Amino acid sequence: MLVVMREDVSEDQVAAVVARLERDQLSVHRSDGGARVVLGVNGTREIDPRTIEMLEGVHEVLQVREPYRLASRSFRAADTVITLASGPAEGLRLGGDEVVVVAGPCSAESRDQVARTAAACHRGGAKLYRGGAFKPRSSPYSFQGLGEEGLAMLRDAAREEGMALVTEVMDAAQIELIERYADILQVGARNMQNFTLLKELGRTRTPVLLKRGISATIEEWLLSAEYILAGGNEQVILCERGIRTFESATRNTLDISAIPVVKQMSHLPVFVDPSHGTGRRDKVAAMARAAVAAGADGLLIEVHHDPDHALSDGPQSLHPAQFEQLMAELRIIAPAIGRSICVETERRSGWGR
Amino acid sequence: MLVVMREDVSEDQVAAVVARLERDQLSVHRSDGGARVVLGVNGTREIDPRTIEMLEGVHEVLQVREPYRLASRSFRAADTVITLASGPAEGLRLGGDEVVVVAGPCSAESRDQVARTAAACHRGGAKLYRGGAFKPRSSPYSFQGLGEEGLAMLRDAAREEGMALVTEVMDAAQIELIERYADILQVGARNMQNFTLLKELGRTRTPVLLKRGISATIEEWLLSAEYILAGGNEQVILCERGIRTFESATRNTLDISAIPVVKQMSHLPVFVDPSHGTGRRDKVAAMARAAVAAGADGLLIEVHHDPDHALSDGPQSLHPAQFEQLMAELRIIAPAIGRSICVETERRSGWGR
Amino acid sequence: MLVVMREDVSEDQVAAVVARLERDQLSVHRSDGGARVVLGVNGTREIDPRTIEMLEGVHEVLQVREPYRLASRSFRAADTVITLASGPAEGLRLGGDEVVVVAGPCSAESRDQVARTAAACHRGGAKLYRGGAFKPRSSPYSFQGLGEEGLAMLRDAAREEGMALVTEVMDAAQIELIERYADILQVGARNMQNFTLLKELGRTRTPVLLKRGISATIEEWLLSAEYILAGGNEQVILCERGIRTFESATRNTLDISAIPVVKQMSHLPVFVDPSHGTGRRDKVAAMARAAVAAGADGLLIEVHHDPDHALSDGPQSLHPAQFEQLMAELRIIAPAIGRSICVETERRSGWGR
Amino acid sequence: MLVVMREDVSEDQVAAVVARLERDQLSVHRSDGGARVVLGVNGTREIDPRTIEMLEGVHEVLQVREPYRLASRSFRAADTVITLASGPAEGLRLGGDEVVVVAGPCSAESRDQVARTAAACHRGGAKLYRGGAFKPRSSPYSFQGLGEEGLAMLRDAAREEGMALVTEVMDAAQIELIERYADILQVGARNMQNFTLLKELGRTRTPVLLKRGISATIEEWLLSAEYILAGGNEQVILCERGIRTFESATRNTLDISAIPVVKQMSHLPVFVDPSHGTGRRDKVAAMARAAVAAGADGLLIEVHHDPDHALSDGPQSLHPAQFEQLMAELRIIAPAIGRSICVETERRSGWGR
Repeated sequence: MLVVMREDVSEDQVAAVVARLERDQLSVHRSDGGARVVLGVNGTREIDPRTIEMLEGVHEVLQVREPYRLASRSFRAADTVITLASGPAEGLRLGGDEVVVVAGPCSAESRDQVARTAAACHRGGAKLYRGGAFKPRSSPYSFQGLGEEGLAMLRDAAREEGMALVTEVMDAAQIELIERYADILQVGARNMQNFTLLKELGRTRTPVLLKRGISATIEEWLLSAEYILAGGNEQVILCERGIRTFESATRNTLDISAIPVVKQMSHLPVFVDPSHGTGRRDKVAAMARAAVAAGADGLLIEVHHDPDHALSDGPQSLHPAQFEQLMAELRIIAPAIGRSICVETERRSGWGR
Repeated sequence: MLVVMREDVSEDQVAAVVARLERDQLSVHRSDGGARVVLGVNGTREIDPRTIEMLEGVHEVLQVREPYRLASRSFRAADTVITLASGPAEGLRLGGDEVVVVAGPCSAESRDQVARTAAACHRGGAKLYRGGAFKPRSSPYSFQGLGEEGLAMLRDAAREEGMALVTEVMDAAQIELIERYADILQVGARNMQNFTLLKELGRTRTPVLLKRGISATIEEWLLSAEYILAGGNEQVILCERGIRTFESATRNTLDISAIPVVKQMSHLPVFVDPSHGTGRRDKVAAMARAAVAAGADGLLIEVHHDPDHALSDGPQSLHPAQFEQLMAELRIIAPAIGRSICVETERRSGWGR
Repeated sequence: MLVVMREDVSEDQVAAVVARLERDQLSVHRSDGGARVVLGVNGTREIDPRTIEMLEGVHEVLQVREPYRLASRSFRAADTVITLASGPAEGLRLGGDEVVVVAGPCSAESRDQVARTAAACHRGGAKLYRGGAFKPRSSPYSFQGLGEEGLAMLRDAAREEGMALVTEVMDAAQIELIERYADILQVGARNMQNFTLLKELGRTRTPVLLKRGISATIEEWLLSAEYILAGGNEQVILCERGIRTFESATRNTLDISAIPVVKQMSHLPVFVDPSHGTGRRDKVAAMARAAVAAGADGLLIEVHHDPDHALSDGPQSLHPAQFEQLMAELRIIAPAIGRSICVETERRSGWGR
Repeated sequence: MLVVMREDVSEDQVAAVVARLERDQLSVHRSDGGARVVLGVNGTREIDPRTIEMLEGVHEVLQVREPYRLASRSFRAADTVITLASGPAEGLRLGGDEVVVVAGPCSAESRDQVARTAAACHRGGAKLYRGGAFKPRSSPYSFQGLGEEGLAMLRDAAREEGMALVTEVMDAAQIELIERYADILQVGARNMQNFTLLKELGRTRTPVLLKRGISATIEEWLLSAEYILAGGNEQVILCERGIRTFESATRNTLDISAIPVVKQMSHLPVFVDPSHGTGRRDKVAAMARAAVAAGADGLLIEVHHDPDHALSDGPQSLHPAQFEQLMAELRIIAPAIGRSICVETERRSGWGR
């Protein structure tokens, strides 16, 4: 922290500020060389900068960025690559050279829907399967998911196709249950600052896909990742899914520029969810291509074997043929940035049977 | 829902849209009188408007507002007045003629701090005491609260002064514990869409003060209230505390206009928290006055008997003398809108002993 | 400007940064006392901070605020009070103890409408009359104003009632014309960064009312005021009129907190326009009261003698009776902050005849 | 416009609303089939929807989108392709199969800088040259451009390399001057709603590149285009350059999703400016790739032969080698969406000599 004093500051005022800082066991280094007196502040104690800003004679308090530590590039210079340690996609690397695609329906609706959609996703080249069993919905009158029954459907379908399963956990009390079915735990945008949940996820050793809150700054997002990392769970994947802006022509504004920004600030893998980011099927492919072109490590794409009959988010789900077409386009784009997208589509059916 | 067709729509396209709607058991009423065919849609089933918007020949789908029901003025025309049914402030009416002030520290820090601050708040005219024992913090490295020990301190101090206690619940699993100490349960801005928590709060019969999420629209806020109301708990108080905008000169932008807007859309009481809304002590009084002038039913004000030594949010806490000054100003303003602010300050000490 | 180096910075990197700064004739003061090397930078040359931020070994560049000078409280500690030097309201003080109200229609429509509305405004207690003759409209198909004919109508009606006239100038080429009719020149929100216009206004000696752009930060707003001040015109009034946020329940979000913030950063008077800020008549009074309670120096209120027949912005215009009711409420509120609102309503008719 | 009545509306209230609409020569078609009475409103007169919304018994007024006409896809289904009619790039098609790149410095600084940068841009594959001679700057103390002398430099350098020139016009009074030098007139973000300027540009027959305002909705942007089109100038190119959001890690948030959205709503070509959108050289390439992948018709890229010595915006200008590298990446991406990027780099030097 740097405390910049007013040009007309008195010696008494400087002394009072120094005393206030030292009261909190902070060490202060005074610099008189410039046009204004500047106090450099160091120490392990945290102090609210506004406390100092309101003292007499203080012009401004400037903070050196990076309140997060474990999530920062300063802490770890090399990219974190998360390797799945078990399950049908054992050995799959997230954050490596390959751009990894997670696909699947918004919600598990029935055994048939889940199985048919899984087959379509796998055929298109997805390595992970996504789908919700517990759904956070803005309205209490909307479909809330099938619960554990849905989890079992999703897991069975994913394993049948040899894909790992990513699914959302909405509450700390659900972690244990969901871990029995899923390979990656997803934290939804509305829960990005559910600190009780984040702390518990820090205690597991299952990878966590942490969506960015709809109005979270990148710094807040990394601080939420820090909650998980600080608990000892180093396997965090960040996922951009659109921010809230004044523009209403799209549901959210997918912040593509967050990709290069986060890659510079942090070593964690960054995925993008263009389905929630745009909210409309006819915009998903354009934004998925943009995300890969901008350097995303992976994508989350909503696919449904029959979107017109989906119980939730059908309008933003791709038809299987659209998904295959998109994957073909992505395979052209990835090499422009030295990446690849897997084309292997042989069925690893019967995994775990 | 109203479906507006394109000017060049064909009869086949209209028929296909009608068929799609009827497949979902919705009744359709066609109107050909205007420049465009318009389909009025009725029924109890919910349908995602985007599903229809993407059909051939559709120009636009317009939704009639108010996805919430129990929270709306249409459902209940008269203002909801919540009367505290027990505790030290038994009989106090929230949402009535009197503007009610909740005051207290950000966090419980020590028995002494909690008691001295409570006395100052009561002296100024506060009827309810606020303070946190479980704190949601953006950084895992910040002070996280004293937990149950803090709850006991807060309750004891509030009762000593004859004030009811408002405190935050961060997780559904905490409700039972916190209800043993508090008279009103507060849901913080970051948890406004923690649906697991909201559902559980619908099952209690303790009043809930629901803060607006930092980027929540008023509609989403009312939908979150609807979660609680739909569970059978009719005692919901809304609390505006600032929204996130591009402006960085204030921590948040306190949305004063939300007060008249919500009063028109809903029958629920609306409180305002100018301390979190501005983040700085020297802006709190101006915004508190503005809130009362705009019609707020109550205020949440952070007060600390010694803000300079507060463990959290000291910079936005008022000194006791500032709080008394503010209350005096508010007593001038309230009559301009036909309201009053209590001046009774006799100590109801020893309540419940 | 302060340049904070990385913790692992090398001496060569520090030397390169110093050399780069000195190349631009900036003086550099190095401080080694803290955990990081910090360079204090001084000089009259401007340098883009990003230039330095991208050099090797630099962690961050921190800027001391206040790129504006003449508009700042540091430059002038006392409040600027603008006294009208001529015209029907000669001697009226803007920014002094009295809260001044500017009222009138959105646009001049006819001689009768302008005269009847002026009489109603004056009766309610307005000291200045407002109304547009050149209207900036988002759509080319909307009513664009009556031009010079409208200006004459507005001036005549204002003088008849003894009020000064405030009207909008949309382009530098219009200044000369409009100055012949108006006592205060208004710059609309969309033109807040029309620098050609601002520079020309710096050359006049007519007071300027500068509306805040819909997405302008307070700093940008003060920089636009600086353009006018730097040209030698010291009579600038700032006017908050709502900012663009994600919330769509109101047309804009009136930023009431901007009032205390600007009063702290600048010595210029701050007015508030609750009519454009809310866009709806039934919200105007609440926000006008809030603005005065928060410390605004003046208000701009749209009034129309017959809003239901207005050619533009009828829905946000008050009926004369509503305006009188509002003024009565404001007279109760103003004393809470040591201000007054004039009650003198005698007609100064025939001014200048 | 559709007027939805309240469920408990009375016949008298319906009659009053109908009368109000008919007073404005609007025709009303009443529909009683659904749960609520709905009035379909038609006619050429414009009416402010808020006028009706405030009448008794009205639940809500819903507007059919598209206040713009000439800019909409409904008006013209096929993509507009603008073919340069004269100048060094005569015959170049904007909005066709080829993705066109406009490159150049922020500002003209000297004859040498302009010439060397032009050579580098042409070598990389740019077909148009960009650069400013009149600069809109937030601060009155920043470099304001070289004026006409700069225009001559830019034109000469562009012609020497066989490139067309794009430059900014800040005020209606400058159009005539700038048209003598430039092939395309650029309207900056801050002037997107300078209606005086837009109207004058409607009278020219020079193509206009219209940047999106920093907080303009897509609808407002298209309405500004409508101003130009309505004047008879059909050659409008839209250019996305970043919107203002709460995120401060980037200067603006480049709204990549605006590309597919605008392509659906309008027939006009859409360009993207990743240099202003991100504000930092190290983010430009990622966003340029994303824009092309999402379907942009063209790019504006800031390039400087020596960015470290640029007088303005050096930090967001690419080095010539970076520009060439980016162009190579874009040539890989374009085919993924059926587009191409020209590789022809032979020098058409001496054009017009």
